[in-house]
Amino acid sequence: MTFTHRHLLGIEPLHPAEITAILDLADDYVALNRSGDKHSDALKGLTQINMFFENSTRTQASFELAGKRLGADVMNMAMQSSSVKKGETLVDTALTLNAMHPDLLVVRHPSSGAVDLLAQKVNCAVLNAGDGKHEHPTQALLDALTIRRKKGRLHRLSVAICGDIAHSRVARSNLILLGKMENRVRLIGPPTLMPAGVAEFGCEVFDDMREGLEGADVVMMLRLQKERMDGGFIPSEREYYHRYGLDAEKLAYAKPDAIVMHPGPMNRGVEIDGTIADDINRSVIQEQVEMGVAVRMAAMDLLARNLKTARAA
Amino acid sequence: MTFTHRHLLGIEPLHPAEITAILDLADDYVALNRSGDKHSDALKGLTQINMFFENSTRTQASFELAGKRLGADVMNMAMQSSSVKKGETLVDTALTLNAMHPDLLVVRHPSSGAVDLLAQKVNCAVLNAGDGKHEHPTQALLDALTIRRKKGRLHRLSVAICGDIAHSRVARSNLILLGKMENRVRLIGPPTLMPAGVAEFGCEVFDDMREGLEGADVVMMLRLQKERMDGGFIPSEREYYHRYGLDAEKLAYAKPDAIVMHPGPMNRGVEIDGTIADDINRSVIQEQVEMGVAVRMAAMDLLARNLKTARAA
Amino acid sequence: MTFTHRHLLGIEPLHPAEITAILDLADDYVALNRSGDKHSDALKGLTQINMFFENSTRTQASFELAGKRLGADVMNMAMQSSSVKKGETLVDTALTLNAMHPDLLVVRHPSSGAVDLLAQKVNCAVLNAGDGKHEHPTQALLDALTIRRKKGRLHRLSVAICGDIAHSRVARSNLILLGKMENRVRLIGPPTLMPAGVAEFGCEVFDDMREGLEGADVVMMLRLQKERMDGGFIPSEREYYHRYGLDAEKLAYAKPDAIVMHPGPMNRGVEIDGTIADDINRSVIQEQVEMGVAVRMAAMDLLARNLKTARAA
Repeated sequence: MTFTHRHLLGIEPLHPAEITAILDLADDYVALNRSGDKHSDALKGLTQINMFFENSTRTQASFELAGKRLGADVMNMAMQSSSVKKGETLVDTALTLNAMHPDLLVVRHPSSGAVDLLAQKVNCAVLNAGDGKHEHPTQALLDALTIRRKKGRLHRLSVAICGDIAHSRVARSNLILLGKMENRVRLIGPPTLMPAGVAEFGCEVFDDMREGLEGADVVMMLRLQKERMDGGFIPSEREYYHRYGLDAEKLAYAKPDAIVMHPGPMNRGVEIDGTIADDINRSVIQEQVEMGVAVRMAAMDLLARNLKTARAA
Repeated sequence: MTFTHRHLLGIEPLHPAEITAILDLADDYVALNRSGDKHSDALKGLTQINMFFENSTRTQASFELAGKRLGADVMNMAMQSSSVKKGETLVDTALTLNAMHPDLLVVRHPSSGAVDLLAQKVNCAVLNAGDGKHEHPTQALLDALTIRRKKGRLHRLSVAICGDIAHSRVARSNLILLGKMENRVRLIGPPTLMPAGVAEFGCEVFDDMREGLEGADVVMMLRLQKERMDGGFIPSEREYYHRYGLDAEKLAYAKPDAIVMHPGPMNRGVEIDGTIADDINRSVIQEQVEMGVAVRMAAMDLLARNLKTARAA
Repeated sequence: MTFTHRHLLGIEPLHPAEITAILDLADDYVALNRSGDKHSDALKGLTQINMFFENSTRTQASFELAGKRLGADVMNMAMQSSSVKKGETLVDTALTLNAMHPDLLVVRHPSSGAVDLLAQKVNCAVLNAGDGKHEHPTQALLDALTIRRKKGRLHRLSVAICGDIAHSRVARSNLILLGKMENRVRLIGPPTLMPAGVAEFGCEVFDDMREGLEGADVVMMLRLQKERMDGGFIPSEREYYHRYGLDAEKLAYAKPDAIVMHPGPMNRGVEIDGTIADDINRSVIQEQVEMGVAVRMAAMDLLARNLKTARAA
């Protein structure tokens, strides 16, 4: 089974075999990116537009490099300083861009569901680069690729996701992906940062790090949004670090060969100890960034293939 | 007769046959942009610099895509956050860029005449992407291409331009182009937004929409600059919409097959009713955006050809 | 002897023969940039990332054009609006970018030494585009190329550097380069803007322009940072211009064929008279900009060759 979707809006609609197809192709792109000539023609003659309604230097850079290395004509639109200010609606903006005949549209938006809405209005392939608290599919895919390469498999692993689960599209997409691939997921965090209804995903919930990390193969830390701290319902940075920050003592509860992940950018000394983050025997944080470019190349390549097939039909 | 100019600074200096030459080539680029491989080598080896002293997401994006699809090395300069702040003069900025050997310089500037001044100082081809209240030639050309494709001709049409005529370089460039091609132009708007001396262009002036739209083939709405509203000399948004906003009732005075145009971004419910804007049997607003990329490709291609001829001489 | 370095962090580590090698190759790129097809494949398949932690429109534009003309995939990162704001450390930012496998990293940073630190953390070639008061090697190289082409040689010249020496990385890199190539350097400026210990570079120090310019072959003016003016320790703009601004009367003390240089952007009427700046018989300010693109192409080409050699080993 190959990847047959027109868009990449989330992990939710993907079949496990499709996830595997993306990761397999991404492995090839990892090799290309490590080589001397990292330019291919997979997207030659195609136009990629990056529309970021929220700032995200690293995600945008990752998509931009992915597209350029595949030979696409890539354009970034900084949507904050754009027509949006002039009162234009999201749909009008989408229709305007659509009229310029892009082939791939990469969209980040602060509202959950905005990217799905936009995808219904355009003729090109849309990639969700993060929408509100909803999904961030390429992040989950790059995490999956990192795990698969480090652990040799992507099933029957015990994965602990720790931190601000409630506000995190990263957690949500990972939770769905890891579940589809038949892993055991544990969520750890303060009850105030734990969403209602996580039980439906079949995962265990902990508010104690030591209990939650017990026997984990993978420890996935989330970024703490500092601006949401000190608000009464969540503890201070210091208190947070004491209870939920990953340090050597807490990590010792996981398996001896457990890997440590973080989507970046990190708050050292808040959600993670700097020494752990830099420990190349445990931390795979740089690998995650590397896998990010490769996974985005794979996803865009597959979507472009489907686009060409659809146009030929 | 072919297009022989060194720059595209306005519609004013163009001969009707030159306008036709640009539109004919643009038709080819519409086809390219709709195809699977929308990349050509017309500008290969050439450098295009976009210098926008005023924000304009959609116009800049249109020029950027046009250049990239033609194989140019394209660079955007955000002039607000640049040397301009450090007190450098416009001419010094132009000379500095000129020394980097661009071939095509696309310039938007808030002052009328600034782009002409700049063109005198550089060795490359300059395209005016809008200067003050003066000209916006590629907008008029894309409007012309849209009309020609929808109406089958670009002469002996009755075109109504409606709204804030006085502050609009879009209206000015269109007025000149449509006059050169022997169309009948009617200007409709509040007397306070109607410039003095329009009679010299040989067009009729109306302050009543119903009278002005009577029998029109083309209804061209202008964007209302909201920041100029409620200032005493112009009415409130609500009052404006009531008198000058295009709705089904007013549009009924135009010909049954009249097309509706807007340069975007639109203020729905201010200068145009959303239903009209979205009516694909009447509104050609998305086509205008599409034609914009094609017309800019054609203009840059023709200017680059002249540049090569001049250099070979 | 060829250029054997992995990075271009400063002029300090360069052998005179290496400086000559860069300038020789840059001469070829001047010719390419003046030709009809200014695109080469020297950096094809390679990724260049421009990381500017300080705004610099013209330096960033020069590096961007240089990379694009050499066929690299070029990405600009505006670091002000990026993860830096989210509290990420410089080293984390560097490691993140490094994980994306760039080949060339162009960095400007307000702190002296920051670029050297960063270079130790990454696998790619790093080019210093200016770090604090430390070095700005490509500026010194472009100045050297301009001098060599105008004077026919780059040794045994008398070069006067005038203005705010203390805060200038441009002055520092030039001083080192000109010394290595066996020129006589004179520094002219108010004692408050003269750094301690310049004697060690073997140059003469003047606080009188007429004395300092006596017999100079090259007059290199520095930009006065206006924000440092009127602070008590330095005079007002008017007083500064009177004493240190370059005008025809002061320039008459230099040799009759002396050339006038300025790194830009200029403050006309502060450090230099506009008439002198525009005098094409004396001023080589536009040539400096032109040489800038060529020197950066040469430096990146040489670094990429070393990178390929190292990878093949």
